[in-house]
Amino acid sequence: RRGEMAKSAQLIDNEVVRAFATHAAIVLLKMMLMSLITAYFRITRKAFVNPEDTASFGKGESAKKFLRTDPDVERVRRGHLNDLENIVPFVGIGLLYALSGPDLSTALLHFRIFTGARILHTFAYLIPLPQPGRGLSWAVGYAVTFSMAYKVLKTAWFL
Amino acid sequence: RRGEMAKSAQLIDNEVVRAFATHAAIVLLKMMLMSLITAYFRITRKAFVNPEDTASFGKGESAKKFLRTDPDVERVRRGHLNDLENIVPFVGIGLLYALSGPDLSTALLHFRIFTGARILHTFAYLIPLPQPGRGLSWAVGYAVTFSMAYKVLKTAWFL
Amino acid sequence: RRGEMAKSAQLIDNEVVRAFATHAAIVLLKMMLMSLITAYFRITRKAFVNPEDTASFGKGESAKKFLRTDPDVERVRRGHLNDLENIVPFVGIGLLYALSGPDLSTALLHFRIFTGARILHTFAYLIPLPQPGRGLSWAVGYAVTFSMAYKVLKTAWFL
Repeated sequence: RRGEMAKSAQLIDNEVVRAFATHAAIVLLKMMLMSLITAYFRITRKAFVNPEDTASFGKGESAKKFLRTDPDVERVRRGHLNDLENIVPFVGIGLLYALSGPDLSTALLHFRIFTGARILHTFAYLIPLPQPGRGLSWAVGYAVTFSMAYKVLKTAWFL
Repeated sequence: RRGEMAKSAQLIDNEVVRAFATHAAIVLLKMMLMSLITAYFRITRKAFVNPEDTASFGKGESAKKFLRTDPDVERVRRGHLNDLENIVPFVGIGLLYALSGPDLSTALLHFRIFTGARILHTFAYLIPLPQPGRGLSWAVGYAVTFSMAYKVLKTAWFL
Repeated sequence: RRGEMAKSAQLIDNEVVRAFATHAAIVLLKMMLMSLITAYFRITRKAFVNPEDTASFGKGESAKKFLRTDPDVERVRRGHLNDLENIVPFVGIGLLYALSGPDLSTALLHFRIFTGARILHTFAYLIPLPQPGRGLSWAVGYAVTFSMAYKVLKTAWFL
């Protein structure tokens, strides 16, 4: 068994794979953070969607008034969905990119810019910053993922 | 070609990778099941969102009344979105974790608890169970993913 | 370091992995395209959700009227969410499937049918085609992912 373990560990010994693992874990944790922020706003704004979540506020009509939408909750939820739409392609394409043998410096450039752009995007969405702050940070992350996809398709092309 | 096949097959020969593959496939299939449950409730409750989906119920006003939201449909859809928000990080971080060389027993503990927690979460959401049933099952899955991310970052750290 | 690079590059040298990488990149890029189509409809239909996005249309009430939902925008968004719900399982299960040592011809059959079905699904959703066009294209992609999951579970089973 030790031999098999070693074989699989080889992959994470590769510096590009290590850099990908680090950045992928960071952006996925950042995405997970959106759940906590949503929960925070739901509780402080008292704005819930499931009747069973308001049971602790009393019964009947007194609890029903907390089944409502709140602009701050909806804003965090939109940021969370935008993360799903953009971080999922990054993780999928980024892993294939890391396996396509890019230069370490080029790969780091891609990973670092994407991670920075998505962190900026979250601040731009939640503060919120005036446009085109959010739009630009979104576009930068999008372009990085597109660039990695181009490298994957050029290296792996087998339709 | 046989040599290349063998090389890639080595990865799935690793017991941690096999355990990850099994649990990842199970939770992804569980997530896919939500689509079928949504379709089931849309058809039995006659609650659709696309006009072309109600064409078989007749034309004009008689079909239009089925373009509506239904509490049961919306509940399944929220469960589905919650799966996306939590199972995506598990699959991404879990794969990197499996490649970071954890002990088999520790890895199995993580994978089994996550899979169990997400299955419980679905039951808690759909029945629905009173809180904190759903909240706790969500938190357990969240904590497992966080613990795996910590191991990935500790092993792979390369920013 | 060159040795390590070579080791990780071996994976992408495998023809099944190359075929997976090509199809996964294509469907993920297709999913990313939905963001651009959403933006296109939001701008041409002037239907936004974030107040800061309408600032360029003037202040106060004159901008507020563009904070509205539009049927075309909502349709693209539903197509985008459906992509997330179906392409995420394909990418996750498909990668594990590619590592489970399938025949190249069987793997290509799975990948090609899934990619074709999801492209058809997008056209069926956006045109829109009458049912069961969209339903069938969805079901075909679903069945392909299910078939791959069966192979993964049969090969890797380790609960």
